[in-house]
Amino acid sequence: ANSPAIPHVSLYGKRGMSLEEEINDSNAYYLAHEIAVIHKKPTPIQLVKVDYPKRSAAVIKEAYFRRPSTTDYNGVYRGYYLDFDAKETNNKTSFPLKNFHEHQIKHLKACINQGGICFAFLKFTAINVIYLLPATKLFIYWDQQFDGGRKSIPLKNIKQDSFQIKYQLNPIIPYLDAVDKMIAESGK
Amino acid sequence: ANSPAIPHVSLYGKRGMSLEEEINDSNAYYLAHEIAVIHKKPTPIQLVKVDYPKRSAAVIKEAYFRRPSTTDYNGVYRGYYLDFDAKETNNKTSFPLKNFHEHQIKHLKACINQGGICFAFLKFTAINVIYLLPATKLFIYWDQQFDGGRKSIPLKNIKQDSFQIKYQLNPIIPYLDAVDKMIAESGK
Ligand SMILES: [Mg+2]
Ligand SMILES: [Mg+2]
Repeated sequence: ANSPAIPHVSLYGKRGMSLEEEINDSNAYYLAHEIAVIHKKPTPIQLVKVDYPKRSAAVIKEAYFRRPSTTDYNGVYRGYYLDFDAKETNNKTSFPLKNFHEHQIKHLKACINQGGICFAFLKFTAINVIYLLPATKLFIYWDQQFDGGRKSIPLKNIKQDSFQIKYQLNPIIPYLDAVDKMIAESGK
Repeated sequence: ANSPAIPHVSLYGKRGMSLEEEINDSNAYYLAHEIAVIHKKPTPIQLVKVDYPKRSAAVIKEAYFRRPSTTDYNGVYRGYYLDFDAKETNNKTSFPLKNFHEHQIKHLKACINQGGICFAFLKFTAINVIYLLPATKLFIYWDQQFDGGRKSIPLKNIKQDSFQIKYQLNPIIPYLDAVDKMIAESGK
């Protein structure tokens, strides 16, 4: 997925592709065309036992998944630092905030404070629709839930606060167009 | 290492600490003090066998280390995208270019093209001295080696082209001071 090779042709609105696959595919396109350098971070692993056999590669024999302390994606585009995560729901009318973790919100807030361009992809898998929600909007819903607010973001609010990403051929999700709008609106 | 907690007090010029530990320690300091958000990326792993026991955490039973397609570190500082790698040598008079890999140089070049601030830490472990070499200087030595040039960078050239990072108490290596100078000189 991190390969800089030009990705295989993606079918329009290909169903069954996960949001992460769609993002990775689009990032490979952006990288190959020198438009942006954005990668998914590897999943952090707690190593317990590693064998080092003679004359062959080290083999991990026991390890555990660790909770990441950041979001999944970051990179650079037109001089801007981008940072984001990707979330999916089967819900049809709202996006549950429990998809996000406290440490991810904290990380996004820290990145915003440093002048980063931060957002989240929200995919409604049942209707195959993807929104790009600026992190500053996400923070409002996130913080409100601890102040008697809803535990999910209604779809009608997402429609208002986000940029919808429409599927196309290449890249399959042209999300940097939305990022351009975010940057223009932010006045950075 | 990715913890946002204020790091334990680092002893001045503590010998025996690896360069990565020194960077991670400094990044924890910068994060805790809201100065920058810079993390080491996890090592990518090729999973082969994972057990999912009932009522307990997934256990990785067979996996292999994969070659990273990027550098080890990136993040955001004062609106700038930072990207770098950290290398050590036991040599005393020059830094071998074989410490770098083609894909890392390619990645750094792609990030420079997008307006990132890119560099490499070069540590001479025998004398416990660390230099921050701007990537644009590194590229010159890297490219020359394929054109009849040296396979290593002489220490005297490194002294000329780099910023030396002097140990201090907190952060143990105050490398963002050198980054400030790099940014000022780049006119970005
Ligand atoms: Mg995710
Ligand atoms: Mg390294």
